[in-house]
Amino acid sequence: MSQLGMTLEEIRAFAGEGEIVGSASVYCESVASLERATGNQLSFVKSPKFFDAARESAAGALLVPERISDLDTPQLVVDAPYELFGRLLMKIAEEKRRQPVGVHPRAIVDDSAILGENVTIGAGAVVREGVTIGHRTVLYAGVYVGQRTVVGADSVLHPNVVVMEDVTIGDRVVIHGGTVIGADGYGYLQIEGRHRKIPQIGAIAIADDVEIGALVTIDRATLETTAIGRGTKIGDLTHIAHNCQVGEDVLILPTVAISGSVTIGDRVVFAGRAGCSDNVDIGEDAIVAATSVAFQDVPAGTAVWGNPAREKGTEMRIQSSLRRLPQMVRDLRAVKKKLDLP
Amino acid sequence: MSQLGMTLEEIRAFAGEGEIVGSASVYCESVASLERATGNQLSFVKSPKFFDAARESAAGALLVPERISDLDTPQLVVDAPYELFGRLLMKIAEEKRRQPVGVHPRAIVDDSAILGENVTIGAGAVVREGVTIGHRTVLYAGVYVGQRTVVGADSVLHPNVVVMEDVTIGDRVVIHGGTVIGADGYGYLQIEGRHRKIPQIGAIAIADDVEIGALVTIDRATLETTAIGRGTKIGDLTHIAHNCQVGEDVLILPTVAISGSVTIGDRVVFAGRAGCSDNVDIGEDAIVAATSVAFQDVPAGTAVWGNPAREKGTEMRIQSSLRRLPQMVRDLRAVKKKLDLP
Amino acid sequence: MSQLGMTLEEIRAFAGEGEIVGSASVYCESVASLERATGNQLSFVKSPKFFDAARESAAGALLVPERISDLDTPQLVVDAPYELFGRLLMKIAEEKRRQPVGVHPRAIVDDSAILGENVTIGAGAVVREGVTIGHRTVLYAGVYVGQRTVVGADSVLHPNVVVMEDVTIGDRVVIHGGTVIGADGYGYLQIEGRHRKIPQIGAIAIADDVEIGALVTIDRATLETTAIGRGTKIGDLTHIAHNCQVGEDVLILPTVAISGSVTIGDRVVFAGRAGCSDNVDIGEDAIVAATSVAFQDVPAGTAVWGNPAREKGTEMRIQSSLRRLPQMVRDLRAVKKKLDLP
Repeated sequence: MSQLGMTLEEIRAFAGEGEIVGSASVYCESVASLERATGNQLSFVKSPKFFDAARESAAGALLVPERISDLDTPQLVVDAPYELFGRLLMKIAEEKRRQPVGVHPRAIVDDSAILGENVTIGAGAVVREGVTIGHRTVLYAGVYVGQRTVVGADSVLHPNVVVMEDVTIGDRVVIHGGTVIGADGYGYLQIEGRHRKIPQIGAIAIADDVEIGALVTIDRATLETTAIGRGTKIGDLTHIAHNCQVGEDVLILPTVAISGSVTIGDRVVFAGRAGCSDNVDIGEDAIVAATSVAFQDVPAGTAVWGNPAREKGTEMRIQSSLRRLPQMVRDLRAVKKKLDLP
Repeated sequence: MSQLGMTLEEIRAFAGEGEIVGSASVYCESVASLERATGNQLSFVKSPKFFDAARESAAGALLVPERISDLDTPQLVVDAPYELFGRLLMKIAEEKRRQPVGVHPRAIVDDSAILGENVTIGAGAVVREGVTIGHRTVLYAGVYVGQRTVVGADSVLHPNVVVMEDVTIGDRVVIHGGTVIGADGYGYLQIEGRHRKIPQIGAIAIADDVEIGALVTIDRATLETTAIGRGTKIGDLTHIAHNCQVGEDVLILPTVAISGSVTIGDRVVFAGRAGCSDNVDIGEDAIVAATSVAFQDVPAGTAVWGNPAREKGTEMRIQSSLRRLPQMVRDLRAVKKKLDLP
Repeated sequence: MSQLGMTLEEIRAFAGEGEIVGSASVYCESVASLERATGNQLSFVKSPKFFDAARESAAGALLVPERISDLDTPQLVVDAPYELFGRLLMKIAEEKRRQPVGVHPRAIVDDSAILGENVTIGAGAVVREGVTIGHRTVLYAGVYVGQRTVVGADSVLHPNVVVMEDVTIGDRVVIHGGTVIGADGYGYLQIEGRHRKIPQIGAIAIADDVEIGALVTIDRATLETTAIGRGTKIGDLTHIAHNCQVGEDVLILPTVAISGSVTIGDRVVFAGRAGCSDNVDIGEDAIVAATSVAFQDVPAGTAVWGNPAREKGTEMRIQSSLRRLPQMVRDLRAVKKKLDLP
């Protein structure tokens, strides 16, 4: 299932470096983890910590950071085995998802759209008026790209992704299935007891190298631009509300919810199902722990925890005290009795 | 990006009211907030509280509630500047999303479907047997409308929305991309250790003027009807389970989860990521705070907070006490020591 | 709306068992609950506990576990009335969703795909290279099935479902609208301050009799296989991350989030919006209460509650103590005063 189909010699050629210990002609049909690899599978050893595991592995060949002694398995010694393994995975992934280049006859591309070279547009995909699609970008089947939206080069929009009008997407951006970019933000004005819509006419800008999971919603700004910075990675089923300014290299794990007009600094981490209320400012390199929700600004470099989120040490002391709380109820009762307090 | 393209005189004509102070011929290319507006942009001043901000703004023209003195910027004085600004936004939004009216040749409309006048049906949209679509309603590309479903007039279903069979949708309803209306509710019967499905054969009724965000799920009732009342607004990635009865003018913010058979009174507010367990009754005008989860009925007009949700004052006292808890642990230890208690 | 259209005699024939008390020719146009049923509707009585409700019901006919005395309403006495009612619901549901069998001329099926007998493939559905679809399986409009994916017999994929490449789906599997199976898991490697993608080249295996709600994401494994066991039922808007191993007959209610590499035993229940962190092990028959999040392993048969989740009794004592906390603050202050403690 994870086809590789290379000899160790071919892997060295692909790596452009490395010294082979043992047979260079060993054939690696596929890849696997150290624990699961069997005879014709390649695995990797991240660091000397895993040398014993490597000696017990049934892998047919190994990528290693230095020669492992007392081991018959053929080894390719490289500087960064895990990185090389990752590059091999990428090669396999690309082959598994290879698309026939070109516009499918059942795609619907408006005459005014500008398509780069070697673009792939799947069956039933819809490209509206004034759209620009960059070189080598892939739109899978069922993708919708709204009026005047620009998608950069080498990007991939998976099946049934919806990108509404006036969105800008950079180069090498990956968006997984069913995600919706550019729905209206949640904004209403109360007039005589009724909720009247505040039209959301702003834009969205997604920078280069961003990856967005499946079934994510990123809402357009009311007037200006909801922005996602370069290299930021967003997990499945996450919501990013209107007017948010998300920095670069941010990690937003699956099922996170970011309310409106939030500013998120570079390299911030929102762990799984974390969140924050609207208009808060999350400083650079801050960490919001899993399921924690920031209702106030988080200073740069700070880890917060809990709901409402507090500085991590503070919350840990509260959580630790909570476990003693039922005993404290009894202790306090005994104290009051002894002191004849009501 | 937020094209307006009107002179102040034309804006007064559009408003049907107002007095111009300064040049009536100033051209407003687009709109922006007071802080961000530059030379050729129109902005608005909600109330005298913002007069100083208005004096500092670089906007090219302003909608104001009364003449602002010491200000050269051309002003249009109207009763409700924010409302007029909203109407201008709506005009821009409509132009940005203008669709060519008619049924796209690549739409798939069953012969038995009844279409109103000036309906728009996008490429790849599917309209099944016995469907009725009201006048001027827009189905974007990739929308699916199941058997016998009725959609009213002037409604908009954004790309890839799924509405299953036997759903009734009112007039002026907006549903954003990828939302699924009418999947089966989660209902199983345990028989000999296995979970056997309880078929969900009920319906869904969505009243007039409802707006539903992107990637929302509203499940059909088991036997009767899941109902969403007039004017209710539902945010992205929200779940409303089977058999719920949601009132009118309710605000359900993004990422809320409402369990099965819940009754929600008129004008209730569920803030972001709030929720409630099944079979509870949320009284009119109640507020469930952000991330709070109601496991019991909430009386009308009550604000609840926390998980489990408690009356707001109660929960605030608990939260406030929690911050002292680690110190209480130490204090109680000192007390017990002094009293020679174990 | 819930059409049945059978006489009680025909219902007995459908059941293959039962004794009729009263008129066998009473016509049941549709079905309803005891409270809501009116003249021409069939309802059911689960057990003698509901006999009084049955006597007050306006239903036109009843399925009963034993003859109810003092009741003129025609009754069909069967061993398991609720089960029979469920079978009748299933019959109605099948008729409501009946599809014209065959491949729609606007479906896009690759020449290399293998289709079973009496398969239904809706308009705009896309079946890629090397796919196998089992007998009588239904792909609604807009479904996408990626390369080499196998779908078993008698399964139903609702509109706009996305199943990516190399996924295996069993027999009698139901997947509701918009769900995405096989997006990449959330995996990045930090290299020189940037997040580099760890390609996710594994697979997904969904066993027989699984039902998956609308807008669910199940991510593919990094190297091996994300697995969902036979008979497991997953609610709407739920996330199951890469490498998870979910057992048989598991109940995962709507809006649950399961992090990566989690093992879930048979018959586990995750109530609404529950969750767990990565790499934990949830033992057989364990229960994670609504909105509770397990950050540690949960032993078999254990009910846990809270966030972080604790053994249910422990958490209940903490929750109960929390309500007294504000009073404890005051009591402790009085104690310290009496003892002259600071």
